[in-house]
Amino acid sequence: MPTADRRLPLAGVRVLDMTRFVAGPFCTSLLADQGAEVVKLERPEGEENRTLGPMVGDEHGGPVSSYFLRFAKNKKSVCLDLKRPEAGPVLRALLAHADVLVENFRPGVLERMGLDWPSLQALNERLIYCTITGFGYENSPLRERGAFTPVVEALAAATIYHTPDAAPMTAGYPVGDIFPAALAAAGISMALYRRESDGQGARIDMAMFDGMLAMNERAVGVSTMLGRDLLPGIRADIGAAPSGVFPAKDGFVSISVVGEVVWARFCRVLERPDWAADERLSSGPARSAHEEEVAAVVTEWLSSRTRSEAVELLAAAGVPAAEVARPTEITSSAQARARDMIIQYPAYEGFVPTVTGNPIRFAGEHRREAGAAPVAGEHTQEILQAWGRLDAADVESLLLAGVAVQRHPG
Amino acid sequence: MPTADRRLPLAGVRVLDMTRFVAGPFCTSLLADQGAEVVKLERPEGEENRTLGPMVGDEHGGPVSSYFLRFAKNKKSVCLDLKRPEAGPVLRALLAHADVLVENFRPGVLERMGLDWPSLQALNERLIYCTITGFGYENSPLRERGAFTPVVEALAAATIYHTPDAAPMTAGYPVGDIFPAALAAAGISMALYRRESDGQGARIDMAMFDGMLAMNERAVGVSTMLGRDLLPGIRADIGAAPSGVFPAKDGFVSISVVGEVVWARFCRVLERPDWAADERLSSGPARSAHEEEVAAVVTEWLSSRTRSEAVELLAAAGVPAAEVARPTEITSSAQARARDMIIQYPAYEGFVPTVTGNPIRFAGEHRREAGAAPVAGEHTQEILQAWGRLDAADVESLLLAGVAVQRHPG
Repeated sequence: MPTADRRLPLAGVRVLDMTRFVAGPFCTSLLADQGAEVVKLERPEGEENRTLGPMVGDEHGGPVSSYFLRFAKNKKSVCLDLKRPEAGPVLRALLAHADVLVENFRPGVLERMGLDWPSLQALNERLIYCTITGFGYENSPLRERGAFTPVVEALAAATIYHTPDAAPMTAGYPVGDIFPAALAAAGISMALYRRESDGQGARIDMAMFDGMLAMNERAVGVSTMLGRDLLPGIRADIGAAPSGVFPAKDGFVSISVVGEVVWARFCRVLERPDWAADERLSSGPARSAHEEEVAAVVTEWLSSRTRSEAVELLAAAGVPAAEVARPTEITSSAQARARDMIIQYPAYEGFVPTVTGNPIRFAGEHRREAGAAPVAGEHTQEILQAWGRLDAADVESLLLAGVAVQRHPG
Repeated sequence: MPTADRRLPLAGVRVLDMTRFVAGPFCTSLLADQGAEVVKLERPEGEENRTLGPMVGDEHGGPVSSYFLRFAKNKKSVCLDLKRPEAGPVLRALLAHADVLVENFRPGVLERMGLDWPSLQALNERLIYCTITGFGYENSPLRERGAFTPVVEALAAATIYHTPDAAPMTAGYPVGDIFPAALAAAGISMALYRRESDGQGARIDMAMFDGMLAMNERAVGVSTMLGRDLLPGIRADIGAAPSGVFPAKDGFVSISVVGEVVWARFCRVLERPDWAADERLSSGPARSAHEEEVAAVVTEWLSSRTRSEAVELLAAAGVPAAEVARPTEITSSAQARARDMIIQYPAYEGFVPTVTGNPIRFAGEHRREAGAAPVAGEHTQEILQAWGRLDAADVESLLLAGVAVQRHPG
């Protein structure tokens, strides 16, 4: 029977991480959280993410990029100057002994280095090669188009509407990066599973656009089947009403009245028996048609209550409701703390940032401790020798020539 | 070398699917897309999703639930009345020979049927048991709290702001269901991989709340590190400006001016050399401070152009931009078609709905064809015999007693 000291699901899996920005680093973080050995391959001066603001930690010898720190725990770092011809064989040596390669360059960057998929397979038939791009490699008319999450969300019809005619919004958190990254981690894990049977790697061609269409499956599927647009955010289309965010004394409350049983409970909490009996309000679509009238009463009811007073009354009556938290409030969320979803980790140079934790929980098992972030090139010698199987003398030559860089923390 | 007729990554994996609503059915769809044999366990009259609107397909002998059709392709169906005591041994027989069980009941439902995790392990030590709940089982103060995606998004500080003070919005697509579902599929695949080494299953305790915190990692991490709230949707905090959705002649355009190189290109496209030289507009935060002035000019420029005319000019100059699609427009998206992300499948009774496709693409391999949706109980006899290993006579008795139900399409 599995016990608390069981080995982590991806223990022993070697991931070469040639990613920047959000999607790639988040994907490899999911793998690292489950025990994979993730090695970031960085340029000699350190990856671009280390320069992206906002900067933090000045009082600890900083500044350090908060952007970098979000995705750095439990990763190692090798610095290699891929512009130098001597770096080619070194990269090949790492790839020959890697289980997984993840990169999110624009299509063609690795191909131009002679590392197209057939060449990678010839080098290491067990390699699982995952790219995360805006629109994918295979069967992709928009392959060359650069992508940022707002662009991808727009093309996938996943923008969010207040009213059917006003300008819609993108999500404001990078859903077009984060969601495809999780799908990529799933694809990599599926490929690892299959490789146990046939010894062969795989090529995962993850596109942010494909991910956002899957995320937007309700609007796309139902709209297509009905032949009219169901726009994300237009609540009347969902049939839940009242449903939305309303102001209380000290912030906002999210309330979701789904179905007539919940509506009856809601009327009791608000002490509005007249509503419960009102024909005009007898269904979700009917209530949506009187949205302003209902919202005014809800707002009036909330105006004398704090978020937690209101949520307590609603939740006790069985009405789905919650305080709208602000991001900094998560640090005092008992739920987030108990689930290890808000954690601190020793980054480096005495700096201990707070970040979100590992969302994939294997119950009853120990979780990987949140370990240090690497300084750029901290593991160059170690990894080139142990993983790339280079001689110590050859590694020394590469360092002397500036092809590889070794650094030590603070 | 892998070929186009290679077996699918999850071929041969048996998934017992006891899920409803969105998160569970989406998770098992990701597994089915990769070749798993997914069997829905439904109540005798068919699962609740089959009754949820909007209904479609009336002209084909319908009505059929569009809600159900979004998640039904390539799944099988067994109808079993779990309220009858005779159903217990049947369910145990299925679980004894399953690889994966996924359910998204509220915590405790299976426990009350005697199917807590230790009992499931005793029944089948190889079983991978995944629950998807609002707040998780283990270390969860809010374990008993019911959850809908708006509630979970609110508690995870993942609501979206137009302005820092106005009421924020939830995403409008069910991100609090869909994202945790993908993480659950990743966890299941990792557990399958590890099981190849040690022969043991695992218990995946996926919480929607944990998933939404991971989705919101930027706002939570950066806000915590800075000690002030970075609110999702408040663009000035990101440093990209102008960035947002603007009205064109025939709809909206999403534009994302990230960095000064892109700003210079943007000024050229809009023929505003004065802007490129304007000190007041020389950085993202500076431009955010003059957001209305910039937006007015962008809107004026777009007012004489269609979405595609504007995007063509911007994209050619290297400015990230895209048409904001409306959901029904996806059916004519060449990109979505080429990537098989908008597909039709033979549901049943001659009805061929259009839904989103499989977002995890293994390049160079064949993809699972989008197969029929099951009528409730279509595979009861087949599965009870082949998978549960019951005698034909015993299955017949169960059908006669109404404990199990067999139906046929058409």
